[in-house]
Amino acid sequence: MIKAKIVGAGGYGGVGITELLLKHPETEIGCLVSLSDTGRKMSDVFPHLRGFCDDVIVSPENPKTKEDYDVVFYSTPDGVGMQTAADELERGAKVIDYSGDFRFGTTEQYAEYANFIGLDPMHKAPALLTETVYGLPELHEIDANQMLVGNPGCFAVSCILGLAPAVNAGIIDTKSIICDCKTGVSGAGKKPSAAFHYPNRYDNMNAYKLAGHQHVVEVEQELSALSDEDVQITFTSQVVPVCRGIMSTLYASLDGQTADDVLEIYREFNQNNLFVRVQDAQTPASIADVRGTNYCVLTVDVDARNNRLRIVSHIDNLMKGQAGNAMQNMNLMFGMDAGTGLAFPGQYP
Amino acid sequence: MIKAKIVGAGGYGGVGITELLLKHPETEIGCLVSLSDTGRKMSDVFPHLRGFCDDVIVSPENPKTKEDYDVVFYSTPDGVGMQTAADELERGAKVIDYSGDFRFGTTEQYAEYANFIGLDPMHKAPALLTETVYGLPELHEIDANQMLVGNPGCFAVSCILGLAPAVNAGIIDTKSIICDCKTGVSGAGKKPSAAFHYPNRYDNMNAYKLAGHQHVVEVEQELSALSDEDVQITFTSQVVPVCRGIMSTLYASLDGQTADDVLEIYREFNQNNLFVRVQDAQTPASIADVRGTNYCVLTVDVDARNNRLRIVSHIDNLMKGQAGNAMQNMNLMFGMDAGTGLAFPGQYP
Amino acid sequence: MIKAKIVGAGGYGGVGITELLLKHPETEIGCLVSLSDTGRKMSDVFPHLRGFCDDVIVSPENPKTKEDYDVVFYSTPDGVGMQTAADELERGAKVIDYSGDFRFGTTEQYAEYANFIGLDPMHKAPALLTETVYGLPELHEIDANQMLVGNPGCFAVSCILGLAPAVNAGIIDTKSIICDCKTGVSGAGKKPSAAFHYPNRYDNMNAYKLAGHQHVVEVEQELSALSDEDVQITFTSQVVPVCRGIMSTLYASLDGQTADDVLEIYREFNQNNLFVRVQDAQTPASIADVRGTNYCVLTVDVDARNNRLRIVSHIDNLMKGQAGNAMQNMNLMFGMDAGTGLAFPGQYP
Amino acid sequence: MIKAKIVGAGGYGGVGITELLLKHPETEIGCLVSLSDTGRKMSDVFPHLRGFCDDVIVSPENPKTKEDYDVVFYSTPDGVGMQTAADELERGAKVIDYSGDFRFGTTEQYAEYANFIGLDPMHKAPALLTETVYGLPELHEIDANQMLVGNPGCFAVSCILGLAPAVNAGIIDTKSIICDCKTGVSGAGKKPSAAFHYPNRYDNMNAYKLAGHQHVVEVEQELSALSDEDVQITFTSQVVPVCRGIMSTLYASLDGQTADDVLEIYREFNQNNLFVRVQDAQTPASIADVRGTNYCVLTVDVDARNNRLRIVSHIDNLMKGQAGNAMQNMNLMFGMDAGTGLAFPGQYP
Repeated sequence: MIKAKIVGAGGYGGVGITELLLKHPETEIGCLVSLSDTGRKMSDVFPHLRGFCDDVIVSPENPKTKEDYDVVFYSTPDGVGMQTAADELERGAKVIDYSGDFRFGTTEQYAEYANFIGLDPMHKAPALLTETVYGLPELHEIDANQMLVGNPGCFAVSCILGLAPAVNAGIIDTKSIICDCKTGVSGAGKKPSAAFHYPNRYDNMNAYKLAGHQHVVEVEQELSALSDEDVQITFTSQVVPVCRGIMSTLYASLDGQTADDVLEIYREFNQNNLFVRVQDAQTPASIADVRGTNYCVLTVDVDARNNRLRIVSHIDNLMKGQAGNAMQNMNLMFGMDAGTGLAFPGQYP
Repeated sequence: MIKAKIVGAGGYGGVGITELLLKHPETEIGCLVSLSDTGRKMSDVFPHLRGFCDDVIVSPENPKTKEDYDVVFYSTPDGVGMQTAADELERGAKVIDYSGDFRFGTTEQYAEYANFIGLDPMHKAPALLTETVYGLPELHEIDANQMLVGNPGCFAVSCILGLAPAVNAGIIDTKSIICDCKTGVSGAGKKPSAAFHYPNRYDNMNAYKLAGHQHVVEVEQELSALSDEDVQITFTSQVVPVCRGIMSTLYASLDGQTADDVLEIYREFNQNNLFVRVQDAQTPASIADVRGTNYCVLTVDVDARNNRLRIVSHIDNLMKGQAGNAMQNMNLMFGMDAGTGLAFPGQYP
Repeated sequence: MIKAKIVGAGGYGGVGITELLLKHPETEIGCLVSLSDTGRKMSDVFPHLRGFCDDVIVSPENPKTKEDYDVVFYSTPDGVGMQTAADELERGAKVIDYSGDFRFGTTEQYAEYANFIGLDPMHKAPALLTETVYGLPELHEIDANQMLVGNPGCFAVSCILGLAPAVNAGIIDTKSIICDCKTGVSGAGKKPSAAFHYPNRYDNMNAYKLAGHQHVVEVEQELSALSDEDVQITFTSQVVPVCRGIMSTLYASLDGQTADDVLEIYREFNQNNLFVRVQDAQTPASIADVRGTNYCVLTVDVDARNNRLRIVSHIDNLMKGQAGNAMQNMNLMFGMDAGTGLAFPGQYP
Repeated sequence: MIKAKIVGAGGYGGVGITELLLKHPETEIGCLVSLSDTGRKMSDVFPHLRGFCDDVIVSPENPKTKEDYDVVFYSTPDGVGMQTAADELERGAKVIDYSGDFRFGTTEQYAEYANFIGLDPMHKAPALLTETVYGLPELHEIDANQMLVGNPGCFAVSCILGLAPAVNAGIIDTKSIICDCKTGVSGAGKKPSAAFHYPNRYDNMNAYKLAGHQHVVEVEQELSALSDEDVQITFTSQVVPVCRGIMSTLYASLDGQTADDVLEIYREFNQNNLFVRVQDAQTPASIADVRGTNYCVLTVDVDARNNRLRIVSHIDNLMKGQAGNAMQNMNLMFGMDAGTGLAFPGQYP
């Protein structure tokens, strides 16, 4: 059995990977760490886990956190994982970090990201940047040799999966890319705030961070790597009153290709990607199709009048956009199939 | 493997049992029957099942429906199951019916129910009434000899589980029972109607069927059987803007018992009931605790000032209130543990 | 023009009365006071008021708060109004307080309330208790001589309006009263908290404060005053995912009266109550009928099998349950018709 | 008093204008016509209007419909108004039609629209097309001489108001326009359907009509008229789980202008437009700011890295997108100020 430690167990990312580890045939939960809920049972913080995970959450200082685990999930904000990931790796654990700490391969790229969002641009563990990989297995080979992974941002997953086949095939003008992204509220995490107080949110929608969202940096990094150009996107983050789900509508100028041409490119690109479903524009799609699952549904469409590609990318922000994708990475890092314990459908309605 | 046929596959009850059968280690789906979605793939009707259940839904006339199956689920309105259940039983299938057709043990009781809701009071398969059982395994022993089960109504499950221990212990005045029940919208089924059109429902709540809800009859039947009296309840059905979930607040007069007394009675009654969790009034509870699961959470409280029992009963109306309970029955009818393939927690948030 | 000061302008109660004062033909807003939003324009805190109320919110220390106003609304927690109401009255203002400070006529009654909710039982302005009135104009005559009013609690309004006619007529057993109350989330106010964070609230419902809700004291005070008995109710507060609205389902034992008997009693009791609508059980009702308005809709029903009265009481908790009722009181305190500027329908859907 | 007849009174557009007419100081409701709710009181169909509008809805054959009215609102589908508008005009009534029937100035333009959505391309009242005007008063002068107005489509209002200043100023490349539009569910009208059944809609979002939405035609007509070019847009219609509200995010390539440049252009364009509020990107905005009102809030932003204009346009689809805009037209057609009876703020929360 693969023994897991979860740092940040008290948040949505922590409970998400806990649920998945409980379901997985080859894993067990070894240690739950959190600053905020120390001393409480996991099932008191999350009552739906009563009888399934009654472990007590410990503080980062608890000796139990120093024991050996096979895998460590950092479901923590930027700047946390980089402080102790090296220790974990030294103890032989594999590390999957949800934050921006290990999404970039060089200190320069990290500094650009950190500056963009107002963090200290100096990375605390620069030596690890050569060992990490951007954890989107549809773009990067992740296998049993991989010890460290930077799990991608939720918006970034939806945009990159939606644009990579087109950028890779060279069919779009990379200067024309627009990502119009709508997220459910759970993307903002568990901490209460005025913006997500029920009476303010229930019948409402709005754009935010128009000046720049932190996920833009990684989308541009990944798309640039697929083309020979320095891709710069226009990105709009918007929040709507759903709990789980991201729907990103992606636009770019084509060079005459038809919807059929593009469909073929997208299907070929994803032929080995278990969790990506490519659909034509006549097939209805909605975020309910992927709710609670690790799947990404891509609707491929061409506005022929304007010679413009339009992709609608649907994911569950807490699954393919976070814990689900982290488990997919874990599966690959331990030599298992990507879908082990993860290839299940959601519940409806 | 247990091969299942589902009649009424296109509704919420049908897709619910489909999801559970897909997850169960010992079952396979043999045949999906529906009047309304004939000829369509199950996964076209329910896109979240794409790749998991792409079977074509057939009409009741299709020869495939006459093949042998180990179990048949009737997720159909009153009056459907009673027409063909005998044929299924003759072919050796076990039968679980979601409607009122097999919830009553005598033609008289059925007639009372049918009259109550304006149906023909003449049962079409009276001989089967001696073979059926009211399918609430917390009250009735269901084992491998049982061939036919009448799966209970969703409101009834919440009320009976909440009141049975008290009625059984003889601690409440059975003339004083009030069931104030709130259901999510999925309880009304998949068919669109003005009452459940999003703009009319999203920020709204109301009572309905004040003159009498069909589930009253079975609640009274079951509670009367536990006492020596002819129990008559006051029952209020109300709908609130959630998708899944029933919260029933149940009141009855006590004879001086304390909350601790009552808790002990409830815990003892449920000591072998895997899916019933008894909690004191200091432990927070909500329908989110049971969403997507087969569990029932009972909050046990006593209003000492008024010497009154108050139970808050929480279930997922589509699980313990429908398909989950049906699978629990199936497990027992095939000699398996009640929780096989069913004892899993939900997802949060 | 009646010049108004609003203390606590930054909360839901403050913005509610602001909206109503803007609409009222005889009022103007003189001063907006708040601790939390000092220095901001009202329309920056509440952008829907841009162009309608761009006044700057001042702190309680600002000299502007000491000027003369005709009416002062305290939309503040318990214990605030009692500190300065005497000063306001001395300056000639009429005072309407939303909290429990002036809902009780004697220091003993106040102490009972304060003890119930863990406040200091010593009232800070005991002399004013003889001058105040419980501000439910359907029960208490409020006229131009009235200088001070204790505006009632939202749950209390729904319960008292629903039960007063029956208690007054002596047709129910006052020991049998059960109030099963469901409120929308806005009742909890504007301050973010885990319980009302969108992902935790959107598809959820729960009971809370089972040990005792503060509004119980005033319901019992008012109903006791209408009967010759010391009324003690069983009260359940529950929250459902709507923004505005309370639906209280009220039960009590009758002595043989029919639904028609009770309807007549309720209609007669309310014949002069502009904002109370009495309906029979065949007429559909929902909180959407009163959303955004000062109306209370009462569905009158009798469960004849059990000889039990059942009333479903529908209000908007922020209108008839708070600011709307406060304005109704203001109208009467200034000798205007109860409905001046207030008798408007809501918007649908 | 202006006496109004409403054809299609039973739908959302009909009840919307009814609510506004009830509030308006110079209007009275003369006649309510509907095919579906004939013989019922308006307040039985819409209980929130009880006591405010208890008129009986009549069928189109009822003699009352032939009486003289000052204004007739057709809140009806395409093809209805064109059949009888000439009769109304002959009787001296002014006519405001909500459908596409009178949005176009020539039979050719109408045919293009009709073909686009699969209607008969032959207009039934071609003579009236020279008398009508596209009813967006921010673009077209509407005064007391105007007898007939084609009220615009809801999506179209949000897009045209958001783009007109930029197109008019010639600062954007009209070949680069993308309209990413999100609507609340009320935009689909009152008729129940699977797509808007609460359990299918409450936690969901999706794009629809990717092949082409009928409002595209009028957006292109209006923008083309402002430029010298034949504008063709890329338009995406999407639905999110809110009741009221459209948020359209609009993109186009600039020629080096800064956010300040653009803000000035937008403010100047709208200096006399009472119902359009222009805001910079630092000022928070959401559809809650305009809910229940006739206002349009435009957030003006420039993505300087990509030299791209981004406008977020917020309206209430049932107000500025429908009945509110219709009343604004009515006001102008009767020589009143645009804001008469209409310039009120919404309710919050």
